[in-house]
Amino acid sequence: MARRSTKEHIVDVAIALFNERGSAAVSTNHIAEAAGISPGNLYYHFRNKEEIILEAYERALRAYDEAWAHAGAAPPSPQTILDLLEETFEAQWEYRFFQREMSWLVQTNEPLRDRYRNIMRTRLAYYRSLIRAWIAAGICQPLPEERLDDLVLASWVVGEEWLAYLEAMGEATDQKAVRRGGRLILEVFRPYLVDFEPRSSVAAQEGTS
Amino acid sequence: MARRSTKEHIVDVAIALFNERGSAAVSTNHIAEAAGISPGNLYYHFRNKEEIILEAYERALRAYDEAWAHAGAAPPSPQTILDLLEETFEAQWEYRFFQREMSWLVQTNEPLRDRYRNIMRTRLAYYRSLIRAWIAAGICQPLPEERLDDLVLASWVVGEEWLAYLEAMGEATDQKAVRRGGRLILEVFRPYLVDFEPRSSVAAQEGTS
Repeated sequence: MARRSTKEHIVDVAIALFNERGSAAVSTNHIAEAAGISPGNLYYHFRNKEEIILEAYERALRAYDEAWAHAGAAPPSPQTILDLLEETFEAQWEYRFFQREMSWLVQTNEPLRDRYRNIMRTRLAYYRSLIRAWIAAGICQPLPEERLDDLVLASWVVGEEWLAYLEAMGEATDQKAVRRGGRLILEVFRPYLVDFEPRSSVAAQEGTS
Repeated sequence: MARRSTKEHIVDVAIALFNERGSAAVSTNHIAEAAGISPGNLYYHFRNKEEIILEAYERALRAYDEAWAHAGAAPPSPQTILDLLEETFEAQWEYRFFQREMSWLVQTNEPLRDRYRNIMRTRLAYYRSLIRAWIAAGICQPLPEERLDDLVLASWVVGEEWLAYLEAMGEATDQKAVRRGGRLILEVFRPYLVDFEPRSSVAAQEGTS
């Protein structure tokens, strides 16, 4: 792998510190020190902590998009979605301070708030259109519009909260626990899915891990 | 109503500030100033901000318990649970900084963390036993143990995240929106509930509000 730029290195170090201590307790000076550079060098790349957080968020978004690029154009099957969700939870674990702090961060970091809300609205719209495509294809039973909206929202909120829940409760945060969020999201829709029996890639690998 | 004690007044003021600015941005000096008392007087009642947060949490718990005292001893019906959930969401809106910050607060406030986890485990156990009682009474279809566990957890997480979601997304936070969390929680179980058609007390009152 090519040597990481100073800018990338700053973000690496910042993400690790945010995950460990919470972003409120980490200053740009802490980040510079942990990165082994001067505060002046850090300020050459980022004007303040908010900009570093924003760059970390862009990175989390890219990790998400990379996973979902495999979803393809035709509506993916429930099992494909489950696999992608599990993969996504594992990837987002690297940026878990966002799941822990987002509802607080958006109060104080305006560019992050705008970006976050935009992305969430796009993803929610994709999610709704996916369920509609499943209904059209006979994969999902027909649902009244209000009901579909409630189910999308309920399962969405599960996904947004899962990692924060694990941490807040002091639960195990191994691969299996982190990936369970994928199954919980789909569990909400399961009664309406025709002939769907979820297979977790983790459960399948359990004997070998 | 009897005049509130200085101690209660401090907690009133602190909760308002935490909701408005986030607890990290509020110092004991800010609280004393907004309460119109000296920092010394505040320290007579609370050793630090963590103790004030803990007292606010006890108050939120009492509000919750007061609502759920109406649940009664026999298993309450799904409609009763929906009414109680809606009431709970409205009551907890007064302490919304907890929903916004809890996964972060438990990292830094050890007594709060212990209290929180304890309470959550008790409530989750009650919730599981309620669904089992519904199954025994024929109100809910039988469910395999693992499935029941997933459904309880998924809908639980919806409840824990609902107010934080509304705020993070900049959605309306009127009574109807806040209470919707109750319906979303129950929506997860709805396909398994026999002859249950939820009636929201908000929707029913909509014409008069």
